[in-house]
Formats: sequence, structure tokens, C-alpha cells
Amino acid sequence: MLSSKDIISINDFSREEILHIIQTAAQLEQDGQKHDYLRGKILATVFYETSTRTKISFNVAMKRLGGNVIGFSHLKNSSFLKGESFSDTLRILEGYCDIMTLRAPWEGSARYAGEIVDVPVINAGDGSNQHPTQTLLDLYTVMQTQGRLDHLRIGMLGDLKYGRTVHSLLMGLSHFNVELFFISHPTLSVPKRYLRHLESKGIRYHILENYPQIIDELDILYVTRVQKERFPDEKEYSQVRGLYQLSRKDISSVRENFKIMHPLPRVDEINPDVDDSEHAVYFQQAKNGVVVREALIYLLLGGEKLKG
Amino acid sequence: MLSSKDIISINDFSREEILHIIQTAAQLEQDGQKHDYLRGKILATVFYETSTRTKISFNVAMKRLGGNVIGFSHLKNSSFLKGESFSDTLRILEGYCDIMTLRAPWEGSARYAGEIVDVPVINAGDGSNQHPTQTLLDLYTVMQTQGRLDHLRIGMLGDLKYGRTVHSLLMGLSHFNVELFFISHPTLSVPKRYLRHLESKGIRYHILENYPQIIDELDILYVTRVQKERFPDEKEYSQVRGLYQLSRKDISSVRENFKIMHPLPRVDEINPDVDDSEHAVYFQQAKNGVVVREALIYLLLGGEKLKG
Amino acid sequence: MLSSKDIISINDFSREEILHIIQTAAQLEQDGQKHDYLRGKILATVFYETSTRTKISFNVAMKRLGGNVIGFSHLKNSSFLKGESFSDTLRILEGYCDIMTLRAPWEGSARYAGEIVDVPVINAGDGSNQHPTQTLLDLYTVMQTQGRLDHLRIGMLGDLKYGRTVHSLLMGLSHFNVELFFISHPTLSVPKRYLRHLESKGIRYHILENYPQIIDELDILYVTRVQKERFPDEKEYSQVRGLYQLSRKDISSVRENFKIMHPLPRVDEINPDVDDSEHAVYFQQAKNGVVVREALIYLLLGGEKLKG
Repeated sequence: MLSSKDIISINDFSREEILHIIQTAAQLEQDGQKHDYLRGKILATVFYETSTRTKISFNVAMKRLGGNVIGFSHLKNSSFLKGESFSDTLRILEGYCDIMTLRAPWEGSARYAGEIVDVPVINAGDGSNQHPTQTLLDLYTVMQTQGRLDHLRIGMLGDLKYGRTVHSLLMGLSHFNVELFFISHPTLSVPKRYLRHLESKGIRYHILENYPQIIDELDILYVTRVQKERFPDEKEYSQVRGLYQLSRKDISSVRENFKIMHPLPRVDEINPDVDDSEHAVYFQQAKNGVVVREALIYLLLGGEKLKG
Repeated sequence: MLSSKDIISINDFSREEILHIIQTAAQLEQDGQKHDYLRGKILATVFYETSTRTKISFNVAMKRLGGNVIGFSHLKNSSFLKGESFSDTLRILEGYCDIMTLRAPWEGSARYAGEIVDVPVINAGDGSNQHPTQTLLDLYTVMQTQGRLDHLRIGMLGDLKYGRTVHSLLMGLSHFNVELFFISHPTLSVPKRYLRHLESKGIRYHILENYPQIIDELDILYVTRVQKERFPDEKEYSQVRGLYQLSRKDISSVRENFKIMHPLPRVDEINPDVDDSEHAVYFQQAKNGVVVREALIYLLLGGEKLKG
Repeated sequence: MLSSKDIISINDFSREEILHIIQTAAQLEQDGQKHDYLRGKILATVFYETSTRTKISFNVAMKRLGGNVIGFSHLKNSSFLKGESFSDTLRILEGYCDIMTLRAPWEGSARYAGEIVDVPVINAGDGSNQHPTQTLLDLYTVMQTQGRLDHLRIGMLGDLKYGRTVHSLLMGLSHFNVELFFISHPTLSVPKRYLRHLESKGIRYHILENYPQIIDELDILYVTRVQKERFPDEKEYSQVRGLYQLSRKDISSVRENFKIMHPLPRVDEINPDVDDSEHAVYFQQAKNGVVVREALIYLLLGGEKLKG
């Protein structure tokens, strides 16, 4: 069981809880698809901004468990917003479901929602703040491909300054004995507060501007999108963009267990010629979003007891 | 069983049918959520105008019964309207479902639909005309909180002139031995035709401009939204708006069994400081929409026989 | 079992496969609605353009089989298209489902999708190219109403030049021993390449400008919509439109087994006074879309083995 009724921030989890979620996901995956644990239960996906991928992934997770889903999208256009307060909307929705996942552009909205309603709330992204289920599926993918979360050398490439997924992932990894390599243009490097956190946890990290010198020593390279708009002038972007286009030739002498991850969608950070490589796991990673969300819903709704 | 294959207007129901629906809903609520009565059955929600709350409530009801839902929204943009007649659309949809719920802005559209198709049709609102499932959930909530529908003193507050829910509710209540208190600004008072109807049924009613003098004697106060636009000039609205903002201090000496209802969404007719009071039941009332719609679907699809 | 993992074009099917699909559909229809063959399976409906009817029909089919559906519509507005390639989107969606149905405006997109992903793909329309499930439901309706696909005299009326359904249907029928009557204004007659194909298969056909002379000898009349825009000038359209408005008086002396089909929606090609005739089967035809799509999904997911 989890210590909280809600899933709000990756920072709320202990090492043991992260491992328990991952193990539950692995168990559900092994059980196959014909679960019927959550028959008659209803998940409400409450999305104040579009995120097709995340919404669908929750949708599939609930249905694989035998439950049903009701969806609220485009909430800005719906009758729910005719002057109605956010908390009124939540309290009404609560009457329609057994568990709720919320995506809203306001930081802190998910935690607030969790306090308002009695049903479990899963944060599916609240502004630039948190997106814990993405982090858990990333950690699951690391475990799945490496067999462990400790004793790994993990590189993170791209926009390390603004990228929410990178920040959450390093917070999650900070419970484990890993060595991190932050690879980015200096204007897009990891904010100091995260580095301070890693130091406080005794995690070794390195700051680099490119990967050729280090890629052959990594177990994981986590690639993220770099948006041209982040650069002061386009000329500077042109100079560095080559760094952010990983292709087949760059991985010619990597470790056997080396895996490339990406939260997707990608634009041109990874050349399609990498896709067929045994090192590419980003589509598998996207697929893992389903079973990890299954595990969270299952645990929050007391699935362990249901099954037992 | 109901006497009609469709649910079109609250005025079609006898006292006995209303009580039978309420009892069926109570029974389904007691049975819990793991119904499987309507497995393989399909409800089509056919919405020519947006009403997220109503649509979702039907959706949840059908899924709680083990059935499935197919939804048609934004029909104005869909291929169904490329010159196709309303009756053609209905006949095609009929081929896809076992029961249909229709929301359309044209008065009488639901009754027309019921005549066109063989599957049962539930009116989910046809213009300013009827919204019978709202009335049934209101009556269910009265029964749930008071234990009876007779011998009650019920106040109705707000826009009693244009409010469809108020008109339907008083029509439904006219089958029972109640005493009604209509509280509104004179420009928003109950239309005469409804008063004539109450008189013909021998229902006692009172017309008031404010509630302080009566609230302590009521069993139910049904609050509705007052739209500023209904007033000839804004000044007049400002003068009376205080009347339409119920707050905690107004309910300091009400009866123990006194309950405040509201069809929601509210804007500022009820101060949030009332929400935590044991007298506030409007969120429960919204939730009751599910089980009442379950009962209707169940009865229309012959659930009693299925179960038996 | 089918010879391909995908359903892309009616031209891919042999006579035997067409008959096998039709027989499977008939069997599923006879089994009634309480199937549970595909429990836990997920169909993704991936629609890059709106086609409410087709999407809903697939939706109902999957749910009747006990499976679940996840839907992607309005894909142009979704996060899937933020610079992401079509093949990346498909590969991610593949991770969420067991079978996929695709509708996209680009010719050949369905075949391409089938090559990209490992799950079965059903073409739900790719531009002006193919819409094989429409053709299969048309053939099913012919079989259902006539008891055979051979030895039939079938008329096709309306826009035979641009009408995708007509072209696919004649390709499908060319496996059978039929006699075809193409009835249209000369500017909208069947393209030569289709006539060449019929000749190569030894199918007899006739080209006519109106139906009064032939309707009493037909077993089936397949009516399609004629768009005014197809005519060089409106005057010419006005002169012939009467031909394209079938009404009750036109069918006063047809054969007993004569049936009128239409892919719907109709505008004014068929007068509503025909609807109640025993010869009108177009609403039944639309309904048949469900059970035919059930059969396809069932066969592609190995339903025969599941059941066995």
C-alpha cells in the first residue's frame, strides 16, 4: 500500500514506495491483460489542457484492469466552467467516480484537488511543476532494461533547464546509487537547486557539453527535446543543434546494455536510423506508461486487498 | 415496469411510477456497484448541445450497470448533419444501440425521437421544455433526506419564472401532499399556469419575496441561479442580490432535518461557508443523478425481468 | 482465418475470404449480443478526419464483442502532431492497443500503417482510395436480403464516376456471377478502368441513363448521392436531378425480392415515402456495419481460436 491516498509529486515517494510500484507494475504485466480486478470502478480523467498521450495511457490502464473511464477534456468549453469554481467542479466529479486523474496548467492544482476530494487523485501534470507518472514509467523502463536502479551511469541530454521530465527523473533517481551525466549547452544546464539536492543525497554528477567523450561508458542516455525558442539567437542554436541529433554512428561502440530513452514526442533529437537498434527503447518506454499507471490505480484502489 | 417505452416529460408519470423509480434507484444503490445487469447493452448519448454533467451522469449510470456507451456530441460538426434529416440520423443511431438519451435545443424533439425509433428514448433536456431526469433526481434526494415525499414544506428560491428545473419539480411534487413556498423577486415569480395547476391538485402554496421569515419552518430549500440579465436594470439586481446569497448565518436556527438543494452549477447563490453544514446536500444531489439514471435505464431495458 | 494481418483494400480479398467474413458476421449476429470473446482487448480508432458513423460503428462492434475502445479524433489538434512523424505516432499508439482502425485523408496511409505496426490495421477510409469495410457491409446486406451473391441483377445509380463506395462494391462483386446496370448521367459514368476489370472477369454490365426501363428486373438498386458541384453548370443538374430522386411510385411494380440500398447519408436521392416500403433496406444496411466490423475484428484477433 502507498502512504498517501494521492499521487501528486515524485518527491513524495520513498525509495521503498518507488520499488513497490515498479514491482507491482511488473507483476501486472506478467499477469497478462485479462485482469478483472477493478470491475465496476470508474476513473475520471479530468483534463484542463490537452495531453492526448497521457490521457489515453490512463484510459488503457483502467480498461486493462477491467474498469471504466469517463473523460473530461476541453473543460474550458464545457458547462463546468460557467462561473463554477474549480472546487465545485471537483466535488461534483467526485460523485461520479472512484478515482480521478487531473491535468491542469496551474502549479499545485493536483495537491489542492487531493485535499478537496475524498477519492484518490493522480497528478497527470500540473503546469511546469510535476508529472510523477512520467517519472515512474521512466524508472520502470530503467529497471526493465537494466535489472536494477542502483549502480548505473545515466546521461541526460538536451534541455536540462526547462525540461520537467528531467528534473523529476533526477529527483526520483536520487533515492538510488547512480552516477549522473548532464549533457547540454551551458544555457540549458540543470538548475542549481537540483544540483544542491543531488549533493545532499551524495549523488555523483558531471556537467558536460557533449556526449562523444562519455556515451560509451553510459548505461542509459535520456534524450529530451530542445526547443529553438530557448536560445537567445538562432545562430547559437544552429551551432549546437548537431549535438542534439543522435544518430546510428554515435552509438557504434556503446555498451551492450546501453539504452536510449526519450519521453516523446521527438522531433529530430534522435535520427530514425536509431529506431531499429537494440539500444532504442523509447517506444517500449511509451508503452510502459500503461502498466505503470495500472499499478498506481491498482494500489490506490486497494487492489492488493481486492486480489488477496 | 413503466407504462411508456420512453422518458419524455415528468408530466407523463403517475405518483406510483415516480415512487417506483425512486425505490428502484434506492435498491440499485444498496446493491452496490458491481452490477452486471446490462452487459453487452449499449446506450447512445445523442447530444445536440453541450451538457457535460448530464452526459457524464448517464455515462456513469450505464457503466455501473455493466453496459457500454457510445457518445455523439458536437453533432453540428459531424457528418451526421451534412444535409441529413434528424429522423434519418435517429434511425441510423438506433441500429447502433439498445437505448438512447437525447439532448437537443428544440422543444418536443425528444417526444418526436421516441416516435421515430423503436429503442427507448430518455429526454436529457429539450430546450426550455423538459428535463425529467433532473426532476427525478431532485425527488430522489428529497426522499433520501426526508424519508418521504408527503407532508413536507418545501421552499423554492431564485429565478422561478424562467427556471426549468423549478417548474418540473413543482409538477412532480404536485402528486404529493406538500406545502410550497415560492421565494423570489416579483419579476421572477412562478408563471400563473403552474399556480393554476397546483390549485387544481389542491396543493397549498405561498408567494414570498424573501426567506428569513420562513426558512426555519422549511424541510427543504431548493435554490436556483438568478441571472443578472433577467433584470430590467442592473440597479434593481444589485438591490435584491443579497437575498439570493444564502450563507451560514441564514441557517443558524433551521430545523434539524432541513436540507438545501441546488441543481448546480452555482455561482454565488450559496456561500461556500454553507458547504460543510449538515444541511447542504447539493453535491449529494448531483451524485444522485447517477443512481436515478441507472434506475431509468434499468427499468426501460426490462432490468426487473433480467434480474428476476 | 484471413490471409493478411490487415484489412486494407477490398481488392486484397478472394471470393472465399469474402464469403468467410460474411458467414462469420452472420454467425456472430446469430450468437446475440452477449459475446465476451475479446474481453480485455483494446481497439484504437485513429481518425485523422471526421467520420462519426464509421467510428461509432467500429466502437459498437468492439464493445459488442466484450472489448474496449480508445479513440483518437481531431488528431490535427492533438499533441500527437507537434512535429511528430506519422510513423512515430503509429508506433506509440501500437503500444496502447491490440488492433487499430485508421482513417486518414492520404491515399495509401492504411497500407503504410500496416507495414509500420505489428498489430492488425483496418482501413476505415484513406482518401478517395479504399473503404473496404463499407463494401463488406454492402455485400453482407446483399447476401442477407437475397440469400446469395451469385445470379443477381444489381443496379447502381447516381454518381458512378467519383463515388468510392460504388467502385469498391463493383470490385467486390466481380468475384461473383452478377449482371450489373450502371445508371447515371453521362458525365458521371463509371471510369473505364473499372469496366476493363469487369470485362477481364467476364462480368456482364450495361450502361444506362435512367432506371424506369430496368428497375422492374433488378434484384438490388444501389443508390448514391449526386453532388450538384459535379456538374459543369447548374442548369444541366436541374435537368437530370429528377432521375436521382427515387420515390414510391417508381417501385410500384418491382420484383418481390427487390431491395434499395444506399450508403447514407442521403439528401434527396430517395424520397422518405420509400422508407416504409419492404424494399427499403438502407437503415438495415447501416446497422449491418456493426456486425461486419465485429467479424473483421474477431477474425483478425484470432477469435476463431479464442472461441474454439
